[in-house]
Amino acid sequence: MSAIRIGIVGYGNLGRGVEKSIQQNPDMELVAVFTRRDPGSVQASVPVVSLQEVESYTDKVDVMILCGGSATDLPEQGPELACLFHTVDSFDTHARIPEYFEAVNSAAQASGHVSVISTGWDPGLFSLNRLLFEAALPQGVEYTFWGRGVSQGHSDAIRRVEGVKNGVQYTIPSKEAVAAVRNGEQPQLSTRDKHLRECFVVAEEGADKARIEATIKNMPNYFSDYETIVNFISEEELKANHSAMPHGGYVLRSGVTGEGTTQLMEFSLKLGSNPEFTASVLVAYARAVSKLAARGEAGARTVFDIPFGLLSPKSPEQLRKELL
Amino acid sequence: MSAIRIGIVGYGNLGRGVEKSIQQNPDMELVAVFTRRDPGSVQASVPVVSLQEVESYTDKVDVMILCGGSATDLPEQGPELACLFHTVDSFDTHARIPEYFEAVNSAAQASGHVSVISTGWDPGLFSLNRLLFEAALPQGVEYTFWGRGVSQGHSDAIRRVEGVKNGVQYTIPSKEAVAAVRNGEQPQLSTRDKHLRECFVVAEEGADKARIEATIKNMPNYFSDYETIVNFISEEELKANHSAMPHGGYVLRSGVTGEGTTQLMEFSLKLGSNPEFTASVLVAYARAVSKLAARGEAGARTVFDIPFGLLSPKSPEQLRKELL
Repeated sequence: MSAIRIGIVGYGNLGRGVEKSIQQNPDMELVAVFTRRDPGSVQASVPVVSLQEVESYTDKVDVMILCGGSATDLPEQGPELACLFHTVDSFDTHARIPEYFEAVNSAAQASGHVSVISTGWDPGLFSLNRLLFEAALPQGVEYTFWGRGVSQGHSDAIRRVEGVKNGVQYTIPSKEAVAAVRNGEQPQLSTRDKHLRECFVVAEEGADKARIEATIKNMPNYFSDYETIVNFISEEELKANHSAMPHGGYVLRSGVTGEGTTQLMEFSLKLGSNPEFTASVLVAYARAVSKLAARGEAGARTVFDIPFGLLSPKSPEQLRKELL
Repeated sequence: MSAIRIGIVGYGNLGRGVEKSIQQNPDMELVAVFTRRDPGSVQASVPVVSLQEVESYTDKVDVMILCGGSATDLPEQGPELACLFHTVDSFDTHARIPEYFEAVNSAAQASGHVSVISTGWDPGLFSLNRLLFEAALPQGVEYTFWGRGVSQGHSDAIRRVEGVKNGVQYTIPSKEAVAAVRNGEQPQLSTRDKHLRECFVVAEEGADKARIEATIKNMPNYFSDYETIVNFISEEELKANHSAMPHGGYVLRSGVTGEGTTQLMEFSLKLGSNPEFTASVLVAYARAVSKLAARGEAGARTVFDIPFGLLSPKSPEQLRKELL
């Protein structure tokens, strides 16, 4: 069988993660990176092509992995590229998933392509576990905890505070809350109970640190509902210790079967790099897309529609023998 | 939509678990329990019918859930009942799954039925996670730990020792081994490193306890490769504290992406009752079977072939909106 030919649209952290992930999957081959920037300004392991020329690649790329952002890139690129290619993306604006699904589905059905939307880990693997847990334990309570990990939105919010030069925010699940759930207690948890927020802040010279700390801790929506820890550090320390993008989290369901028998299901991730892991999941779903396309299917799909067997390079016989 | 009509074949712990689970799922209805015993000797919440009369139920049952054992019941009943009904079973003799799949597949294809084989938690949910983890992190090491839980095979082995009146054995994952894996160390673990075995033994009056303990600890295949703890207790204590059937375990994969970034995936179960949880999983897969049958599909399937969306009573639109 010839390799699955992959294209990457958008070459930020996620796109570079996809490039690395493909090198770990011998049944795949990266053809080109497509960018809206000047292609001459971008260095990659494969040709870098202007996104305007993407149409000339319809017979050279089997699956296009869309690595743009959910705010403005994907709402346009998703439906447009589904007219030309089989696609995979990580659209993650939860509230807008239904309308995004409809837009991509219309484009993909009309043009005979398969598009998996909103994969990665949340939405993605966490969503799968929420569904599985609810189906297996209909009487129960579900808990999702995120972190310990960097939140871009909250880090941006810190950096907008007057007197702040730079900053990084970690979302941290409460150990006590996770322990109570694991213990089968089915606790009622407020926002404050579930997560803490830890900030590493570089202040500008002469800035009023007490005022910065108070401004951060009282910021509505972002911090005021949480226990927030603010640490002031040097720019060097921030670069040295807080440049990685770790993340992760837990999905738990505490349920009951029969006459009050407690049952606990848990899925968790501890990720050294959020974009590299998300990229690895996108690549596995690109494999599934190529198999669905080979069957002649068309339209948008989510992780809920894809049997796990399609994610693997192994045959159904091999999977039954080795992994069941 | 009318309820999915379920039949149960075999009314041991698993069959009773299915009966209870159906009461938690309003889209399902239990029609009858089928048994090889004298139906008059069995009490259930629905009519109990001789297995010999199962053919007269082909238009009364949508999905038959097979709750017999893997050693002798399912190898016969699986293919036979797949000729008459859509079926779900928990066939768990790992080495014989390929031949069992072929036998059920032939019967189901010829008669136009759908049969999900080998579901539950291992094989089943653990298998799904082994596959998912390997697809997402192709460079990595997988670890499965079982327990803390009762092993019937090892409990039986204890009870065969001379001077033993009764006994229960718990398989316990090593905390140190699980911690090392979670820590990203990718340890090489021997059999002895991964699990301990704890036995609760009721000795016959006047029996030589030192000899019983030595016999258990040195028993080949069952105990000699493990750290084994033997506790002597009274029959009353055994009944009071060791009659439940808890189980569970962990599937972990410690992998690497990019240039040495560590990534950890974990799935775990902590089950108050092994048979009740296995039954709940069988019931969710019975729902998937009824949906596949409605599409006109036929043949044997495993968990690897079933999209999670089919496990839920919710519509695809609802799932995308609520759980993605």
